[in-house]
Amino acid sequence: MARKVYLEDIPLDEAWRRFIAALDALGRWQPIEGEDIPVAEALGRVTAQPIWAGVSSPAYHASAMDGYAVRSEDTLSATETEPLRLELGSQAQYVDTGDPLPAWADAVIMIEHTKPIGGKQIEIMASIAPWTAVRPMGEDMVATELVLPANHVLRPVDLGAIAGSGHGTVIVRRRPRVAIIPTGTELITTEQAAASGVKPGDIIEDNSIVLAADVEQWGGLPTRYPIVIDDFEQIKAAVQDAASKHDLILINAGSSAGSEDFTAKVVEELGTLLVHGIAVRPGHPVILGVIQPPTSNLQLPTPIIGVPGYPVSAELTGEIFVEPLLARWLGLAGHQKPTVEAKMTRKLLSPMGEDEWVRVTVGRVGDQVVAAPLSRGAGVITSLVRADGIVRIPRFSEGVHAGERVTVELYSSPAEIDRTIVHIGSHDLTLDLLAQHLAAQAGQRRFVSAHAGSQGGLVALRRGEAHLAGSHLLDPDTGEYNISYIKQYLPDVPVVLVTLLRREQGLIVAKDNPKRIASLKDLARPDVRFVNRQRGAGTRVLLDYRLKELGITPEAINGYTREEYTHLAVAAAVQSGMADCGLGVRAAARALDLDFISVEWERYDFVIPKKYYESDLLRPLLELIRGDKFRAVVAELPGYDPSPMGQVAALIS
Amino acid sequence: MARKVYLEDIPLDEAWRRFIAALDALGRWQPIEGEDIPVAEALGRVTAQPIWAGVSSPAYHASAMDGYAVRSEDTLSATETEPLRLELGSQAQYVDTGDPLPAWADAVIMIEHTKPIGGKQIEIMASIAPWTAVRPMGEDMVATELVLPANHVLRPVDLGAIAGSGHGTVIVRRRPRVAIIPTGTELITTEQAAASGVKPGDIIEDNSIVLAADVEQWGGLPTRYPIVIDDFEQIKAAVQDAASKHDLILINAGSSAGSEDFTAKVVEELGTLLVHGIAVRPGHPVILGVIQPPTSNLQLPTPIIGVPGYPVSAELTGEIFVEPLLARWLGLAGHQKPTVEAKMTRKLLSPMGEDEWVRVTVGRVGDQVVAAPLSRGAGVITSLVRADGIVRIPRFSEGVHAGERVTVELYSSPAEIDRTIVHIGSHDLTLDLLAQHLAAQAGQRRFVSAHAGSQGGLVALRRGEAHLAGSHLLDPDTGEYNISYIKQYLPDVPVVLVTLLRREQGLIVAKDNPKRIASLKDLARPDVRFVNRQRGAGTRVLLDYRLKELGITPEAINGYTREEYTHLAVAAAVQSGMADCGLGVRAAARALDLDFISVEWERYDFVIPKKYYESDLLRPLLELIRGDKFRAVVAELPGYDPSPMGQVAALIS
Repeated sequence: MARKVYLEDIPLDEAWRRFIAALDALGRWQPIEGEDIPVAEALGRVTAQPIWAGVSSPAYHASAMDGYAVRSEDTLSATETEPLRLELGSQAQYVDTGDPLPAWADAVIMIEHTKPIGGKQIEIMASIAPWTAVRPMGEDMVATELVLPANHVLRPVDLGAIAGSGHGTVIVRRRPRVAIIPTGTELITTEQAAASGVKPGDIIEDNSIVLAADVEQWGGLPTRYPIVIDDFEQIKAAVQDAASKHDLILINAGSSAGSEDFTAKVVEELGTLLVHGIAVRPGHPVILGVIQPPTSNLQLPTPIIGVPGYPVSAELTGEIFVEPLLARWLGLAGHQKPTVEAKMTRKLLSPMGEDEWVRVTVGRVGDQVVAAPLSRGAGVITSLVRADGIVRIPRFSEGVHAGERVTVELYSSPAEIDRTIVHIGSHDLTLDLLAQHLAAQAGQRRFVSAHAGSQGGLVALRRGEAHLAGSHLLDPDTGEYNISYIKQYLPDVPVVLVTLLRREQGLIVAKDNPKRIASLKDLARPDVRFVNRQRGAGTRVLLDYRLKELGITPEAINGYTREEYTHLAVAAAVQSGMADCGLGVRAAARALDLDFISVEWERYDFVIPKKYYESDLLRPLLELIRGDKFRAVVAELPGYDPSPMGQVAALIS
Repeated sequence: MARKVYLEDIPLDEAWRRFIAALDALGRWQPIEGEDIPVAEALGRVTAQPIWAGVSSPAYHASAMDGYAVRSEDTLSATETEPLRLELGSQAQYVDTGDPLPAWADAVIMIEHTKPIGGKQIEIMASIAPWTAVRPMGEDMVATELVLPANHVLRPVDLGAIAGSGHGTVIVRRRPRVAIIPTGTELITTEQAAASGVKPGDIIEDNSIVLAADVEQWGGLPTRYPIVIDDFEQIKAAVQDAASKHDLILINAGSSAGSEDFTAKVVEELGTLLVHGIAVRPGHPVILGVIQPPTSNLQLPTPIIGVPGYPVSAELTGEIFVEPLLARWLGLAGHQKPTVEAKMTRKLLSPMGEDEWVRVTVGRVGDQVVAAPLSRGAGVITSLVRADGIVRIPRFSEGVHAGERVTVELYSSPAEIDRTIVHIGSHDLTLDLLAQHLAAQAGQRRFVSAHAGSQGGLVALRRGEAHLAGSHLLDPDTGEYNISYIKQYLPDVPVVLVTLLRREQGLIVAKDNPKRIASLKDLARPDVRFVNRQRGAGTRVLLDYRLKELGITPEAINGYTREEYTHLAVAAAVQSGMADCGLGVRAAARALDLDFISVEWERYDFVIPKKYYESDLLRPLLELIRGDKFRAVVAELPGYDPSPMGQVAALIS
């Protein structure tokens, strides 16, 4: 039973001000102390002090060649016609590369330019200038010179320079220790989920895995605590234990205001609750506080961050609070992610009063960089995986218009973005396989796919937002696929229409077909709940065409207005019992072990503007669908016919 | 004593062809096998197989809010004027966010929109549509969907998606095991160097530290072997041991053809020597081969790479052979470093017939990206540390013209390059301190300094290759510093002249001044060996001016033509005994504990084009030199007067 406590709505900058002021007062808003560690173990660590050369390098005049150390003035008379002999020992001494010069020598003659005479002399045929083939002392580094500044993340070559300038150890910032405490009676571990599956009410505890890996990547040392059930005393005990051993506590979740959200109360009891609720989206129920150690203890108080439970909210809280705090402690504050200016493909409404972060995929299409927003659901972890970057919509803005330029903070490298093929259009299950094979292939194209339906894909091509569009739009008048639509949507664009495959469309129904659905006619039955595809989808076009033939109106169909964006989502709706049937491909029914009533075979094509068809970027894709290997993979799938795969169905200019 | 064996000169692509053919024949030119590890330990690892969702997420219809699960059809009549009561249990059931919906419910009403009536009912004032505030099963991922492709480097959020889709473990490629064997009787460990210093003939063994860190960063698992002395049997034993436990052996060095270079012979005895000497620079004496296991052993043969001893050669060998081989084994082949097109600041001659790699610093100056070549000495480890990128000069090219556009493969991120302040000009020891303080400051500017002398700096400004130039050019006619030179070199550029400091120039002489040098007049003494600064250096201008006053010609000075580029290099030449004196700042003498004979105090300014003076980029620098903290640091140094620091000495337009 619930008692609702309303959260605060503190603006982000005000929340940070409170947090910093509290940490500063406790002496915890400054870089963390250094520790002295062996150079060989310092990869990725951050220098806590500048490093000055302890010795010069070379530390002595060293031979730069294999050859003979000589006095240059002894060699003056040597010529090709009048060779000169030098006495070994007093006038010439063999040196390997790197050997020190004898005190009397000032140059080295390459061994290739000498001739041994007995065992006592060498002959030379040219004079040599002073300091030839010598690396003078200090050529590389002079003792006392700056080798590396403080606050520098150590790379492999830095370790060489530190060691080479005479240091066996290096003072680097201690890695901040971060406790991660997952709380929630509903949580199960990944091991439990893998062993016994996920029962209704179970939630797989994956946030602590992500947060721990984040902390590691941001330079901290994470400790994952075991799952704590929703019990005030048990949570309190875990927080007290964590506070005694860590620089920072992340507690996930219980930071909201539901009946079992104890985090705020625990923080109040053990220390100071600074902020409870921040005007950010996703991730509103964030807690910021400080845990006091027992008075007997000399230890400093420990900051605590209550991280919301949804994975996207949790990750954003990590990025906007944990990463900057760790960066501050490591002396890395001020570093910025790379950014890119991009054109937003879709309109985004965003509430006034909240800073909102939207994850996007980014691709370079022709001359422009385009950003396509991903699902904004706080629970959609795939939006984290698929994101190339993130866009912040400030709290005084109501959103972004389609086509507006935005600044994207990048997670992917610009090189990755340059090898990204952007597909917007109809969804097919083989697109996953295509992405998988392209990633494994030489050139390693990333195939990024947004499911906007066949017509949505043609619109995206017109706007220059995609390289290609999957489409299966049947023209009822001609019986042809796609061509008339392309002429309508892309009147001025030369296009190559490449067939990917033929596939079987039909009604996806529950296992054993309990409602005895036999054909599209049954959709009009009042006891049949249908799940539809979104407007613009080829499958929807097909459905509407066949319904019209059958004289069935949309109003007669229970569930006609419930829309899903992919075949698998339709199948999932049937599997969950939310609907009795939906139109989709056989493979989707098969994937979720559902039954399938065939309606017809259709052609699925890639619509590719000619300039991209001929580009380097798309070549591996065309090679793939024209090769035997991928064809064989698709042939294995039920409901697919790959025989026309890769054929040019039409050239439209 | 030496027997010279000439190395081969195999072009790089031919060397690779032989290596790949040999590995392919042995079944070792393919991605390495996978291993199944817990998801929580998989950060940074590479997927060996595609990952398909094991469960749907959510795995059931879940409440998206804290509130009451209801049947939407039960709520139809509720309005603000006619509220509706629902029975707890049969019509409404409390759910926390994430809880599964009861089988009979199809929507959730937020708790804020309900009113408790006794303990048995709630009151609502609006109807609710089906599926409101519900996360339907499979919203995020549908079981059987592709979560991640093979050959993907796992990020924190990927681990969440793998765990969230029902997997407790993930199959990633085994990390290739790489043995690194340092060989050389002259080598000492970093620990020995730190404890006892570097005696003539000692070389600090730092290559294995760099190579091990490289291997780690490239995804391998390095083993550093102890140093092996130059002894055929001992090297052979180490290689045999390494071959039995590793996927790859790096042996460093002994790969050349000197008297104690045993690597090639060991490879010939234990397996096949494929290549000995590659037409690359730096790094010619590379060995490629394969070690056969004992016949009794079922293990595959182990590739071996003989890595040259110079640190820059060793690192390049790592980059051109080890990194691609590890990438191939990990399934990452085809990934490319980010590149940038840049203007080369200086002419580079490069020998025909060799592929040469030149390390460069990169900065964005105004509209152009400029690349300045670093020292090409194979022993200059600081060139590795300071490099932002690397330029390949192909073997059919004779070099690069000054101003020519080149493609730079970047080590630094574009963001780092954007916060880089490029200084080209006169060298002063406080520039190291300035770099150190700027790195530690908010905004963290990188201060990259090329020492081209005062006049070289003005030329660089004219060419748009630097943001500022340190200069101390005395005009003998006016007694003024810098202004007349600026007017001459930069006639059309508005410039702000900002004073950094005054400093004491004088003769740097050996400790206790054994040659009794008293003034510049002594430079004409035949027993005094001088070391000079390069043409264009302010110190050289000063010297020439004073020599003219004294009536001393350059020819009269022993060593006038020996040039060094920095004050510390001049001091190092004196310290090593290579010269008896040189002109430089007091701080350089002090740094190496040498004596100093004062000549005069001079002013050292920053010449800053107005557009950069007013830029965001340079603001932290100007704030730094106008603050008290840095002034205090410089005041501590002997021979420096920071009193005019930060003052505008002149505005020149």
